[in-house]
Amino acid sequence: MDIGVTQMNIKRLARVTVLAFSLLAITSGNAFAKDQLPSWNDGPVKTAIVDFIAAVTDKNGPDYVESAERIATFDNDGTLWLEYPMYTQVLFAFERVKELAPQHPEWKTEQPFKALLEGDMKTVGASGMKGLMEIVMATHSGMTAEEFASQASHWMATTKNQHFDRLYTELGYQPQVELLEYLRANGFKTFIVSGGGIAFMRPVSEQMYGIPPEQVVGSSVESKFEMKDGKYVIVRQPKIHFVDDKATKPIGIYQHIGRRPILAFGNADADMQMIQYTMAGEGRRLGLFVHHTDSVREYAYDRKSHVGMLDKVLDLADEKGWIIVNMKDDWNTIFAPK
Amino acid sequence: MDIGVTQMNIKRLARVTVLAFSLLAITSGNAFAKDQLPSWNDGPVKTAIVDFIAAVTDKNGPDYVESAERIATFDNDGTLWLEYPMYTQVLFAFERVKELAPQHPEWKTEQPFKALLEGDMKTVGASGMKGLMEIVMATHSGMTAEEFASQASHWMATTKNQHFDRLYTELGYQPQVELLEYLRANGFKTFIVSGGGIAFMRPVSEQMYGIPPEQVVGSSVESKFEMKDGKYVIVRQPKIHFVDDKATKPIGIYQHIGRRPILAFGNADADMQMIQYTMAGEGRRLGLFVHHTDSVREYAYDRKSHVGMLDKVLDLADEKGWIIVNMKDDWNTIFAPK
Repeated sequence: MDIGVTQMNIKRLARVTVLAFSLLAITSGNAFAKDQLPSWNDGPVKTAIVDFIAAVTDKNGPDYVESAERIATFDNDGTLWLEYPMYTQVLFAFERVKELAPQHPEWKTEQPFKALLEGDMKTVGASGMKGLMEIVMATHSGMTAEEFASQASHWMATTKNQHFDRLYTELGYQPQVELLEYLRANGFKTFIVSGGGIAFMRPVSEQMYGIPPEQVVGSSVESKFEMKDGKYVIVRQPKIHFVDDKATKPIGIYQHIGRRPILAFGNADADMQMIQYTMAGEGRRLGLFVHHTDSVREYAYDRKSHVGMLDKVLDLADEKGWIIVNMKDDWNTIFAPK
Repeated sequence: MDIGVTQMNIKRLARVTVLAFSLLAITSGNAFAKDQLPSWNDGPVKTAIVDFIAAVTDKNGPDYVESAERIATFDNDGTLWLEYPMYTQVLFAFERVKELAPQHPEWKTEQPFKALLEGDMKTVGASGMKGLMEIVMATHSGMTAEEFASQASHWMATTKNQHFDRLYTELGYQPQVELLEYLRANGFKTFIVSGGGIAFMRPVSEQMYGIPPEQVVGSSVESKFEMKDGKYVIVRQPKIHFVDDKATKPIGIYQHIGRRPILAFGNADADMQMIQYTMAGEGRRLGLFVHHTDSVREYAYDRKSHVGMLDKVLDLADEKGWIIVNMKDDWNTIFAPK
């Protein structure tokens, strides 16, 4: 290639390039303006979201926030994916007990494993948090980091939720997937901050939400670095390292992200402290909660639910300026079309 | 604007745009190729780094790695910034004790504070790890997250290191700053993984290395979410939450990043496990150590040093294929020019 000629051409082409991009920007930005949140119905909630994003990205406006500080945190269970009538991760743990039973003959007589294997869910429930933790530890520790990631992602990608006849990887809320994309397109960095297991969510977070593993914050077990079969690995231990829930969600954010979010989205009283922490920062902020009000397309539950209880938040929302998203009215689609 | 005409133009301009970019890519990639690592001397070490980055980014090569998996982790003390003869964070803690002394009359009689205030460093040293932890806790807890960040960044940005007559924020290694930029330009995500305090490094990591706070992993204290002066804040507690050192560096990586790095860079035996973990993954990997060999421009220390001891690593490097960077020979610049 003749470099001299190339350089001359480049100058001319660079000018044309700038022009081309200007035109593309104009057409995509205005003339062909597209609704970035098609699964959200028009109304005050959608307007509040769109206005907030416009305000913090307007370089000449009073609410402008540098891109680096545009941190958005989302709870997962009930906020990004289905949690009712039972958390996905608990269902996974129950299934794993069944798969692992042949290697654990002692479970035939030990509770709560015996009850679980016999389908006696009443006894399992009666074993309380202690019983549940035994089930979680038996199914979430002892293996390497890679093995657990593979077990979790395999289960979610191959197991169907009976009620919806959809794989668990298909049960993320479509309006939230759109919102996450919309935020990222506006220079936000999006994080999951969930009481669920960090290692359970990470293998599917990129595929389901476009959120990479390093932007997932959650509860965790302790782990050890060791040599196994001649290879250095991380082995998961049967002991809780961190519970990322209620008043420890802001702690998880501090440890993991190190900045105060400017937008936070939850669906339960357990997310209230994350929203309080977010709203207490300087400048414009947005705090939102999904209210599960759709008994036809999903479920309706709030103040008395055993999962995702939403009670105090409903009392305080008006006074605090938190936005309550009414699933039935504000979302025209719940899950992505089949 | 006539949209019909615009749309016709766009197609033509899009073709021209593609052409312009192809030409720009050719000229920047080959004909006008620029040394991306000017502070690194030519030699086997620089070649190994450049070859590795070329190999994992070559889409048609056998060593190609998707951008999302291009995780690079760097130790901080002695790898990215000065650590000799004493860790920067320890110097900060000592200074803070002096500043806080008027509020702590009891320190006039309590060790190791008494000795520190009297400049009796021998007694401070004799107080060992227990004494040092008391000094660290007295200066790193009790305040809000924001207050500590402001204290740390203010000290580093205003305090001069006497030996080099430079501010602490100017004592990052220039060759590493170039390498970090070069990695990011090649689709890598760069992280700090340090035994130092996560909250001490974060306020300066973006400015010094282009690494945002959420990509800093380090040791931490426990913290609490509470209301203070009518505002929700995180308050740092006088208790260790996580020590990110030696065999817990891979754990810090697992908890925080959730992926195994493909490149890791340290300078001490305390970084060995991070490099072992990195090298044990599938596919091509790169593990490197800075060897401080430059008694003129910086310092020379290794096997018997009280900070950044590099001993076992030097014995194992050849056998394991770890790269030892000889500071004196491989770096033509240590710090950015004044």
